[in-house]
Amino acid sequence: MALIIQKYGGTSVKDIDRIKAVAERIKATYDAGNQVVVVVSARAGVTNELIQRARQINPQANKREMDMLLAVGEQETIALMAIALHTIDVPAVSRTGAQAGIITDHDHTCARIVNIDGGDLLEQLSQNKVVIVAGFQGMSREGNITTLGRGGSDLTAIAIGAVVKADIVQIFTDVDGVYTADPRIVPEATKIECISYEEMLELASQGAKVMQARSVEFAQKYDVPFEVRSSYNNEPGTIVKKEAPVMEEVLVRGTVLDVNQAKITVGKLPDKPGTASMIFVALGKAKIMVDMIIQNVGEAGEASLTFTVNRDEAHTAKKVVAEALSTLGWEGTARDGEIAIISVIGIGMRSHAGVAATMFEALAKGGVNIKTITTSEIKISCAIDPIDAQKALKVVHKAFRLDEPESIRMQKICEK
Amino acid sequence: MALIIQKYGGTSVKDIDRIKAVAERIKATYDAGNQVVVVVSARAGVTNELIQRARQINPQANKREMDMLLAVGEQETIALMAIALHTIDVPAVSRTGAQAGIITDHDHTCARIVNIDGGDLLEQLSQNKVVIVAGFQGMSREGNITTLGRGGSDLTAIAIGAVVKADIVQIFTDVDGVYTADPRIVPEATKIECISYEEMLELASQGAKVMQARSVEFAQKYDVPFEVRSSYNNEPGTIVKKEAPVMEEVLVRGTVLDVNQAKITVGKLPDKPGTASMIFVALGKAKIMVDMIIQNVGEAGEASLTFTVNRDEAHTAKKVVAEALSTLGWEGTARDGEIAIISVIGIGMRSHAGVAATMFEALAKGGVNIKTITTSEIKISCAIDPIDAQKALKVVHKAFRLDEPESIRMQKICEK
Repeated sequence: MALIIQKYGGTSVKDIDRIKAVAERIKATYDAGNQVVVVVSARAGVTNELIQRARQINPQANKREMDMLLAVGEQETIALMAIALHTIDVPAVSRTGAQAGIITDHDHTCARIVNIDGGDLLEQLSQNKVVIVAGFQGMSREGNITTLGRGGSDLTAIAIGAVVKADIVQIFTDVDGVYTADPRIVPEATKIECISYEEMLELASQGAKVMQARSVEFAQKYDVPFEVRSSYNNEPGTIVKKEAPVMEEVLVRGTVLDVNQAKITVGKLPDKPGTASMIFVALGKAKIMVDMIIQNVGEAGEASLTFTVNRDEAHTAKKVVAEALSTLGWEGTARDGEIAIISVIGIGMRSHAGVAATMFEALAKGGVNIKTITTSEIKISCAIDPIDAQKALKVVHKAFRLDEPESIRMQKICEK
Repeated sequence: MALIIQKYGGTSVKDIDRIKAVAERIKATYDAGNQVVVVVSARAGVTNELIQRARQINPQANKREMDMLLAVGEQETIALMAIALHTIDVPAVSRTGAQAGIITDHDHTCARIVNIDGGDLLEQLSQNKVVIVAGFQGMSREGNITTLGRGGSDLTAIAIGAVVKADIVQIFTDVDGVYTADPRIVPEATKIECISYEEMLELASQGAKVMQARSVEFAQKYDVPFEVRSSYNNEPGTIVKKEAPVMEEVLVRGTVLDVNQAKITVGKLPDKPGTASMIFVALGKAKIMVDMIIQNVGEAGEASLTFTVNRDEAHTAKKVVAEALSTLGWEGTARDGEIAIISVIGIGMRSHAGVAATMFEALAKGGVNIKTITTSEIKISCAIDPIDAQKALKVVHKAFRLDEPESIRMQKICEK
């Protein structure tokens, strides 16, 4: 018998038929003798409908009231799911975020969990009840309903997993696990059986869409093992957990391509000390994250600077740079352009040399020009021209033999 | 400056345009210097949609979960209304039933209010905020979300009126007040300016659809004056309040026709003492309310009994009678048929004689046969054939000059 948290997203519960199907899946887990807590999102589309309705009144609606409005979506789902479970003889009871004791700060629409006591969750479990908790929502200490922002339901599931010390949190989603590369680009990509929090975090931060970084961070902080798996089949997914020695035997766990980056080139920089730092301080204050600094080449005595930011923030970044430099009487330009970043990730890099060399060699053979490189303990990233992006991913994936099962690759390392 | 509670029903807030219109109305009241609390229902249709969704899963859904589900409807409206008010510069804040401190018993889907502390309502009002409260819902002492059943939003408004000692509770609805008769049947009917709780209760219990009796009873118990008025215009409606001496000067306040009654005739009753009481005890246990007992005529040595019940309960009533009498070896029949009841209501009857005579005379002149009569201190009711119902209402309405303004009628009484 295990204590299992299951989280189902909006598409998994989008209509009555899907809700019934999920109820059957929960029943199977429950009937196998497990204790089950279920976290659900709003039915797909409902949150957007609510947002649209509010926008028709005011595009800049008050955030407290937006939270009051949006919390409705999950509350509907928990009730319907509990009813569906009763109908197939599973004793179930629903709980809103507030009732599940999820206390947040008062940063409405993107609140952070500050405490969670689980309400009477353990008591309900001990009475053999399945508890259905509304994801995405909580309550501030002042008693206001809050929502957790994007990926909030995953966070709810992990947080509840932490408080009840769950054996595993199962995140049911529309992908069936984490792959060695995006299978739409690299059809030979293989599903990763098991991955450490650190690796998962690097994948998430590099744009792998499976899960938000903050949910992974929360899981890492409280050591909550979780599994990303499909709500459409019964295949095992990818388990994410604390690093174990055996995991280091795999050199590279996965590759990821981030095409959602923009490069900003700031020209005709004043030749004064502190100019560059002034730019990065201003960007930091504007909460714009700079990923890579690509080059700093003087042209005819004038310095220029190129860095990468998330594409959504490119416009703001240019403005921030211009404003920061205006006090210096700057007459240059800040231009943006496209850039792609390819990364390989693996905790095995720490103890095995040669990863960078293999990667550069593969890219060179594939005719991909590297603009710059950044490395961390478990990741190597190269900025490249977006035109080369898909080819780059394919050659790197192949170079690390990620199309072969992990067990074979581990053996090969041992043979070396 | 007054403290005003405004309640808007589902059709008044059914879409974004209506919500904006209501917001403007609230603003006008607020800008005139009043403190305003607003109680809103779910948008028209939303509650039914939610019920339908639940029924698709299970027609007998668990009531606790139905309440969790249905509470969603009002929560959406309060948020949208607060956003609409912010947009036109009215500081507003929303509160769920639980947040407004509405504590109920745990009789889910038809809970009774057991306590209400108003939450931080008075504090918000003192900060010049308009507070938007979700009608129809509350919370049990165990922390479960409950709903108050039919007419629940009116009840919320009256209850909040009681706790904040409102000067007036304005119930905005699709009728513009209480009339001396149903204007669809009697086009000459006039709007009643002011009416006592007792008179309103008699009207409600006789089938006038304006408001549920329990909201009126609550208002009476805590002496909360309220006004029934239209959400489509700015005309004054009908004020319902504590009886005042001047109100007695009007002989008859209004007339009401109840065509939603059925008569049950129980034939071939055993000639034993206690047979009739046995029937009424059984009906009482089945919670079926008997309104009138019409006749008890012996036919060829056999007793029969006729009584009236709400038409919805006629079928059950027949069954209950048959079961109660089966132990006596009863071989009779319980038949049901249609009946109409016409009533005149007015606290003035207490101090003025002749009301019954005027009513019977009017019905006789109109050729309407009276089957039986019941009277209370402020009401006279006659059971009649449904075929005569509309005619009866017209002649009685005319006989009491209810087509003339109250001020003229009062004068006539004084002249007598």
